[in-house]
Amino acid sequence: MSKEEKPESVSLCPLGAAAEPEQELLCIFGTGDLGRSLGQRLLQSGYRVVHGSRRPHNCGPLPQGAQVMSHEAAAQSASLVFLCIHRENYDFLTTLAPQLKGKVLVDVSNNLKKNLYPEANAEYLQRLIPGAHVVKAFNTLSAWALQNGPSDANRQVYLCGNNVEAKQAVAETASKLGFSVLDRGSLKAARELEDTPLLLFPEWRLPLRLAVGLNAFFFFYLLIRDVVYTYVDQGKNNSFRIMVSLANKVFPIVSLIMLSLCYLPGVIAAIFQLYRGTKYRRFPVWLDRWMLCRKQLGLLALGFASLHVLYTLIIPIRYYVRFRIAASTISKIKENQTSEFDITSAWRGDSYYSMGILGFCLFLLLGITSLPSVSNALSWREFSFIQSKLGYLALFFCTFHTYLYGWDRFLHPSTYKWYTLPGYMLSLVVPSVVLIFKLLLLLPCVDKMLTRIRQGWERCDPEEDAKKSLLT
Amino acid sequence: MSKEEKPESVSLCPLGAAAEPEQELLCIFGTGDLGRSLGQRLLQSGYRVVHGSRRPHNCGPLPQGAQVMSHEAAAQSASLVFLCIHRENYDFLTTLAPQLKGKVLVDVSNNLKKNLYPEANAEYLQRLIPGAHVVKAFNTLSAWALQNGPSDANRQVYLCGNNVEAKQAVAETASKLGFSVLDRGSLKAARELEDTPLLLFPEWRLPLRLAVGLNAFFFFYLLIRDVVYTYVDQGKNNSFRIMVSLANKVFPIVSLIMLSLCYLPGVIAAIFQLYRGTKYRRFPVWLDRWMLCRKQLGLLALGFASLHVLYTLIIPIRYYVRFRIAASTISKIKENQTSEFDITSAWRGDSYYSMGILGFCLFLLLGITSLPSVSNALSWREFSFIQSKLGYLALFFCTFHTYLYGWDRFLHPSTYKWYTLPGYMLSLVVPSVVLIFKLLLLLPCVDKMLTRIRQGWERCDPEEDAKKSLLT
Amino acid sequence: MSKEEKPESVSLCPLGAAAEPEQELLCIFGTGDLGRSLGQRLLQSGYRVVHGSRRPHNCGPLPQGAQVMSHEAAAQSASLVFLCIHRENYDFLTTLAPQLKGKVLVDVSNNLKKNLYPEANAEYLQRLIPGAHVVKAFNTLSAWALQNGPSDANRQVYLCGNNVEAKQAVAETASKLGFSVLDRGSLKAARELEDTPLLLFPEWRLPLRLAVGLNAFFFFYLLIRDVVYTYVDQGKNNSFRIMVSLANKVFPIVSLIMLSLCYLPGVIAAIFQLYRGTKYRRFPVWLDRWMLCRKQLGLLALGFASLHVLYTLIIPIRYYVRFRIAASTISKIKENQTSEFDITSAWRGDSYYSMGILGFCLFLLLGITSLPSVSNALSWREFSFIQSKLGYLALFFCTFHTYLYGWDRFLHPSTYKWYTLPGYMLSLVVPSVVLIFKLLLLLPCVDKMLTRIRQGWERCDPEEDAKKSLLT
Repeated sequence: MSKEEKPESVSLCPLGAAAEPEQELLCIFGTGDLGRSLGQRLLQSGYRVVHGSRRPHNCGPLPQGAQVMSHEAAAQSASLVFLCIHRENYDFLTTLAPQLKGKVLVDVSNNLKKNLYPEANAEYLQRLIPGAHVVKAFNTLSAWALQNGPSDANRQVYLCGNNVEAKQAVAETASKLGFSVLDRGSLKAARELEDTPLLLFPEWRLPLRLAVGLNAFFFFYLLIRDVVYTYVDQGKNNSFRIMVSLANKVFPIVSLIMLSLCYLPGVIAAIFQLYRGTKYRRFPVWLDRWMLCRKQLGLLALGFASLHVLYTLIIPIRYYVRFRIAASTISKIKENQTSEFDITSAWRGDSYYSMGILGFCLFLLLGITSLPSVSNALSWREFSFIQSKLGYLALFFCTFHTYLYGWDRFLHPSTYKWYTLPGYMLSLVVPSVVLIFKLLLLLPCVDKMLTRIRQGWERCDPEEDAKKSLLT
Repeated sequence: MSKEEKPESVSLCPLGAAAEPEQELLCIFGTGDLGRSLGQRLLQSGYRVVHGSRRPHNCGPLPQGAQVMSHEAAAQSASLVFLCIHRENYDFLTTLAPQLKGKVLVDVSNNLKKNLYPEANAEYLQRLIPGAHVVKAFNTLSAWALQNGPSDANRQVYLCGNNVEAKQAVAETASKLGFSVLDRGSLKAARELEDTPLLLFPEWRLPLRLAVGLNAFFFFYLLIRDVVYTYVDQGKNNSFRIMVSLANKVFPIVSLIMLSLCYLPGVIAAIFQLYRGTKYRRFPVWLDRWMLCRKQLGLLALGFASLHVLYTLIIPIRYYVRFRIAASTISKIKENQTSEFDITSAWRGDSYYSMGILGFCLFLLLGITSLPSVSNALSWREFSFIQSKLGYLALFFCTFHTYLYGWDRFLHPSTYKWYTLPGYMLSLVVPSVVLIFKLLLLLPCVDKMLTRIRQGWERCDPEEDAKKSLLT
Repeated sequence: MSKEEKPESVSLCPLGAAAEPEQELLCIFGTGDLGRSLGQRLLQSGYRVVHGSRRPHNCGPLPQGAQVMSHEAAAQSASLVFLCIHRENYDFLTTLAPQLKGKVLVDVSNNLKKNLYPEANAEYLQRLIPGAHVVKAFNTLSAWALQNGPSDANRQVYLCGNNVEAKQAVAETASKLGFSVLDRGSLKAARELEDTPLLLFPEWRLPLRLAVGLNAFFFFYLLIRDVVYTYVDQGKNNSFRIMVSLANKVFPIVSLIMLSLCYLPGVIAAIFQLYRGTKYRRFPVWLDRWMLCRKQLGLLALGFASLHVLYTLIIPIRYYVRFRIAASTISKIKENQTSEFDITSAWRGDSYYSMGILGFCLFLLLGITSLPSVSNALSWREFSFIQSKLGYLALFFCTFHTYLYGWDRFLHPSTYKWYTLPGYMLSLVVPSVVLIFKLLLLLPCVDKMLTRIRQGWERCDPEEDAKKSLLT
């Protein structure tokens, strides 16, 4: 393409070989943020760049080395045109139809909202200028990624279009910029590509809803038990407990439940596989969806656990706690009591704190290995060792921590205010179930069967066996 | 290049195709860390490597598979020579000028300090051996990155040189090693490339200076108010407060101010855009620089906030605090006082802690999403949601936390020792201003105008409009 | 390859050029997780894919766009066949020997354990089908990485094989998928490649063993001093101290020792270099191994330091501590004591906490910069500044923190129960040695010499000098 400037390049190439490294000229319509970023990156990767602008002599700062022309002149000079303009301004392109005929038009545009227009921007563009080969590409990258080059998760360029050669030309350019390319098929995929940058944590939605739901339920449940009950029963207003005491009950409960919900689907999946005797049948959709959001569930649980840690650690500086301790000391002196040091209480309390700390630290380790750069640096076996073995250990510590919290409270009738169970008992149901089932799955006979199934073995299917023996 | 060993490769290639996969031979001068690392990497990527050494028979450990020769022989055998030697030893290369004529010389060297020599190493090399084509490249990579292959931020290879084909040859080699290449132009850019590895946190300098300045100011300010004043006024020596109490006042003050300074430039920029009625005019330089160091400001603020958290949590185990609590209990008993439980104090204190914890956790979340691997995994919309929406929420929580700390203290004359304001009041000025202006910017009419401007709309410029209508 | 479908592609290519972008057809044997993931990725990168299956009409879900055939038909259609089946099922391939002759067979398989079979899977495959060109590749990637494309640490594809062209064909495919390729030589390297995914934290083994050993030693040492001694001497059972008090002595001791062990090898290496007068002689193997696991040592030390922080912060909410404080207050009142506020104790205690907090925060900073994505974003100089300068500062703070903990305890005979030293004294040995030697190495004369040696200077070797002067 554009080989008419050979003489210039010859003077640059005294190495003796033919004047091969002629730099390709690309055209960019638009001089906004995206256009400038793309231009700069193209220039740095060795392309020559010409910007098309509606006011070529007054178009703001451009990257050093870029030319600027009218749209017509720019379109004519290159065979590949990047469109970095808003869809609303596409209509003026119809006047350029003759210049754009047979050219590759790269639609980089995004919309501000989903379903703003009946058809995708790229499809609309193709309809406007049927003579050009429209390729949708680069729109999932930020201007920042375009300017500074690919970084880990911003490496992928998705493209789609109806013309194979046009797509190949764009793919080559993207590769030269250092991106890796994924072809998503014909222009019909453009809408999906245009919706991608508008997604807001799609995989976090389900876990977040669950977290909000659980928090709300336990907040009101405990509000009734801890504040309303006391007010009704004893006429005492301890509404101030909402800010710290109640929060410090709700967060650990939700955290423990959500942590155990990370491990429940794995247990259910194992039971499915054992029951069906094969790993080749798909899981129900709800289980698949559940398994896909385990990481998010776990990270939210870690967040609530961290809140629980901080809320616990500030306990001794609270006014309420200091007042109560002083009051109890004063009353002891006045009534001349002598309390004995209870070694069981000391053991129980210290074990309770110790389990909590160990569980939290393991949990934190799981969180750290979920960081993309850390999990990428682990082999698959290492990652599954941490997330599964250490994960179950963390769940065990946290569950044990909660049992130690309860201790012999379940024996005292005063615990069951208004015939309700205390929050910590409710939080123990799911983790206990998960741990019991996991223990059952670890029984040698069950474990052996499960391992065989996961290696591809299938339980007694005579017809299949016959087929297989015929084949081999 | 070097096709004389075809027979060998033919025996390896019974696939039927022509003996194409002849591996290219590259030469490396120098057998130090860098030379060996580069050699190993080249060998692993399928090149053949010959090292040139001043003592070919005694040059220490070399990567397996590499040959070693005298400099003359090595230079003659390949068309591309990597120079992994110190600039001080360049002069011996003049004796090799005949062998190096027409070859591509890749200068990988770095200096120990900036401005050590009047000209860049690569320019000096080109002057020494005018017949060779010098290309500066690979010098920004560590020996570690060279040996272990590209990783996220060590993926970019910058190169510059006067000869286009020589640059292309080096670029191809770099691509085969898995790096992505950025051409920085002629050899005049060599100095800049050589200065790059010597940079020490350039983007952290301004925020660090600010942090040091603010810390120093508030340290001395509070030293005077808390220690000197008490000594002068009451003759009491509480200099021990410097280590924890004073630190735990200075750090949160600096943290809050720096956090609000992250959000102030965004507010100022919005006001600029509203006033000018366009987003196409550049911001003043100071605002640009300020906006570029927001991430660093925020991370430093997070560091000080973490120190504040730790200093707060150790309060109850301090000797001073335990002594005071015991003393107050004892005095209460002796004077037979009975203090009433004050529910307002309980509410205020617990809210104060709760706001602080929530603000800190949100702040931590902002910090975690600033980790390169996490921010890369977010879409642009997700990143801006967290950094902007959640960021303002964190700022609000932290500001509210400080207001609750103050409570009704501003009413007590004893607060204004020596007619100075207490530190927490000073720390509230900037965040309050930022939050008020942000609220104003969120008013529907203002917000709508700003959104339009940011989408490219410009306020009434009749001349421009005329131009535009002509064009379309 | 496979150019027989040109007519189809011609209809897709109206750009005018020759029908070049014919998409290559690749074959995959196996429809399991790995096969499907690989197929999906190949399809997305623009290849056409045909799966070979033993039950082509009932083989479970396949990626959209993939064909499925019998093994014979699939093998005949493509020149490159990926084997995504278990080694146990390889024997049926012998029946396909005629169809596979001259084809490239990519062995992707892994085993469940090391040394399960006498020869590597790929070597076994080559022996089964001598007419094919077996290449071992892709086996170090997870199915996840294959499906979702390369990410930071999952970018590298290792391959080995006896045929250069076959390897090149596989390397090209891997490059198109976005991976970077490392050639590991002939098929003899296959065993090593097959063992790679089975590794479980090889570089963590030594530090973990050390940590377990140190923890066990100090646990029993302090158990004897703190629990057994008290029981024997005073008949008092304070076994409950195991859970928190003992843990909170063991963890900081181990943490400080391991942190100083990170910096000891650097000091030893410097002494070696000074003594030998050159940097070109290799260090002893034990020192090399030690230096390679410094990062792991440091991260484990950080883990124990974090545990120490949490164990310290829960001190004031422990039953034991609250009981003792109340008891001491009560006894003071009863005996009508008045204790004076001791300003030295306040200074000492507060400094002790302050040093610990600052040391821990610096330590945390070191840990954060060890995250792959953060360390990649730092220049070499920045990384070494943090890990070396700030690392020594952290070590100094932590050592000073421990000295302040000891204070004047070493003067009291009661400290030396059963003639043993207290734990904190033992923990101070290594860090003190490291800090003293580091100070000596920072003396101007020593530092200058060391810098010269590290820049390549060698101490007086007359023979070498003669050689050098001859050369230049």
